[in-house]
Amino acid sequence: MAIATDRIRLSDVAQVAGVSVATASKALNGTGRMTLETRERIKQIAADLGFRPNAMARALISQRSFTVGLLTNDTYGRFTLPVMAGVSEALVDEGVSVFLCGIEDDPALGRVHVDAMLDKQVDGIILSGKRIDKRLPVDLSEISVPIVYVFTEAPDDAVSLVSDDAQGAHEAVEWLVSIGRRRLVHVTGPKSFASVRERAGAFTQVAGESAEILYGSWSEAWGHSAVDQLCSAETDLPDGIFCGNDQIARGVVDALRERHIAVPRDVSVVGFDNWEIVSAATRPPLTSVDMNLKALGREAGRLILELSGGRHVEPGIRKLPCKLVVRESCGGAAPA
Amino acid sequence: MAIATDRIRLSDVAQVAGVSVATASKALNGTGRMTLETRERIKQIAADLGFRPNAMARALISQRSFTVGLLTNDTYGRFTLPVMAGVSEALVDEGVSVFLCGIEDDPALGRVHVDAMLDKQVDGIILSGKRIDKRLPVDLSEISVPIVYVFTEAPDDAVSLVSDDAQGAHEAVEWLVSIGRRRLVHVTGPKSFASVRERAGAFTQVAGESAEILYGSWSEAWGHSAVDQLCSAETDLPDGIFCGNDQIARGVVDALRERHIAVPRDVSVVGFDNWEIVSAATRPPLTSVDMNLKALGREAGRLILELSGGRHVEPGIRKLPCKLVVRESCGGAAPA
Repeated sequence: MAIATDRIRLSDVAQVAGVSVATASKALNGTGRMTLETRERIKQIAADLGFRPNAMARALISQRSFTVGLLTNDTYGRFTLPVMAGVSEALVDEGVSVFLCGIEDDPALGRVHVDAMLDKQVDGIILSGKRIDKRLPVDLSEISVPIVYVFTEAPDDAVSLVSDDAQGAHEAVEWLVSIGRRRLVHVTGPKSFASVRERAGAFTQVAGESAEILYGSWSEAWGHSAVDQLCSAETDLPDGIFCGNDQIARGVVDALRERHIAVPRDVSVVGFDNWEIVSAATRPPLTSVDMNLKALGREAGRLILELSGGRHVEPGIRKLPCKLVVRESCGGAAPA
Repeated sequence: MAIATDRIRLSDVAQVAGVSVATASKALNGTGRMTLETRERIKQIAADLGFRPNAMARALISQRSFTVGLLTNDTYGRFTLPVMAGVSEALVDEGVSVFLCGIEDDPALGRVHVDAMLDKQVDGIILSGKRIDKRLPVDLSEISVPIVYVFTEAPDDAVSLVSDDAQGAHEAVEWLVSIGRRRLVHVTGPKSFASVRERAGAFTQVAGESAEILYGSWSEAWGHSAVDQLCSAETDLPDGIFCGNDQIARGVVDALRERHIAVPRDVSVVGFDNWEIVSAATRPPLTSVDMNLKALGREAGRLILELSGGRHVEPGIRKLPCKLVVRESCGGAAPA
């Protein structure tokens, strides 16, 4: 019934059972001295009334609340929802639920939600953001529950998980080389992003110092402009373009097609993110680097369980591997 | 400190204060008999240690936990995250936090998370989905906390909020008529969706029984195929195409451009959803119907507060208006 508002209290159970609140409490918590029959009768009444033993009573026994809080400033969900799915997957068999709170970039909202999580005595808090070089606007330095950071900047002594941008970029560029591409260009986002610098560094390592890098924005429009630039340059057109994200790659592919340059015959294009809404809808669909965000989430869930079980987890940044997802925009066969 | 795992317990506070656990509890709950000085001293020690009074103790006083649960099967976040942002906005000033749990389409997961929410004694549960004619796989019929349904199918006696698809579609088609378009076509998703039937019904009301409706999938690829069909038909090309979502509209716009049919000069195109990643990146950017999901969320938050405050809310489906967002794909000036 959607409009009922009364909560069954322990006192209601006690009243129906004809015992004191203390006795009812002991019966349900498995403590105190009473006959098995009395205990079972009280439990049955509680079940019939729909009484739910409160979180505190359970936590007092196990010192665990079977809840993990997930805080994010990623209100679009692009990064955090796959992470959340992974955390859930890791925890559901332990009977642990994940509660997500969105804090936008508002420290006051952060405070309210962290307080709410601590109030509910979560077993741990996972912080998840939308870039690896920005902190969420919350101060958790005084907090005594375990904390794991995923895909966001973390204090030095924290347990933190990010995807390995450099390794992912390496794989992408090596794939272009392996299918015979030699004139490589990297079209990417703003240099102010750490992930841009990581990916660009890996690109240069594989493609060489002379291979051009064009920095711009994270948009399709930038992909179009970059192709404009490349086509009006004196030099030969590249035969392989590694893009900093899928939106840029989509712009690049569309701009090439509109100039009657065939993808992948004339130019191979690789994206980054493997964001299906973009990568799968591109014509042809994009080969792209997947950051394995769900795997990051699973590992975060595992580490939070370790920590909340009182086990030691070495602090520091853990980098998890990315995976190249091959579609049609490069040509060549899928890697073994 | 991310790796600390000990939780400060009431017994720690009591020990440091040199009082019994019961006295410490009473001091912090504002009950019992003791000097003001003792009470303040214990409170100060609790604050210094970072002890957090448990949720139950607070709930016992206010009968409210200041938490609302949000359950969703929308793991992509397309619909639920804007709803969540709205709920948060409505509740944050009341000091209420929203906890989101993702249940995919798994009844077992639904059960675990609903139990966790009830354990935490949430003041209410909001259910949110990804279509208005499917139920989430959870049975809440026996649950006594207030429930509000948003953007998902609900039982008859429930409080439920959806966007007004028919009104939104009406506005879109009337807008096409108001800028002089006469040969109108509707290209939309699968007829099995209630929202498709609602939007199509509104289209026919405005455009007339003879105006063609093409049903397909929710994809860009279907937008391309639909333009193929329209161009190979014997009849004149339409001069206004109302699309069932933005992805279809993007496919339609791309397909028209590739046939050198100018949008909006020759054909006006309207989308539905106003999903910025698609609508703003289309060339030209799409005029689109926005379902005001954040406003749905705000209203859901307001209703949950009413219900958890014990006030009556009339059950039934509430339809909230959509809003036409005018960009360049139609031509004409923005409506007053």
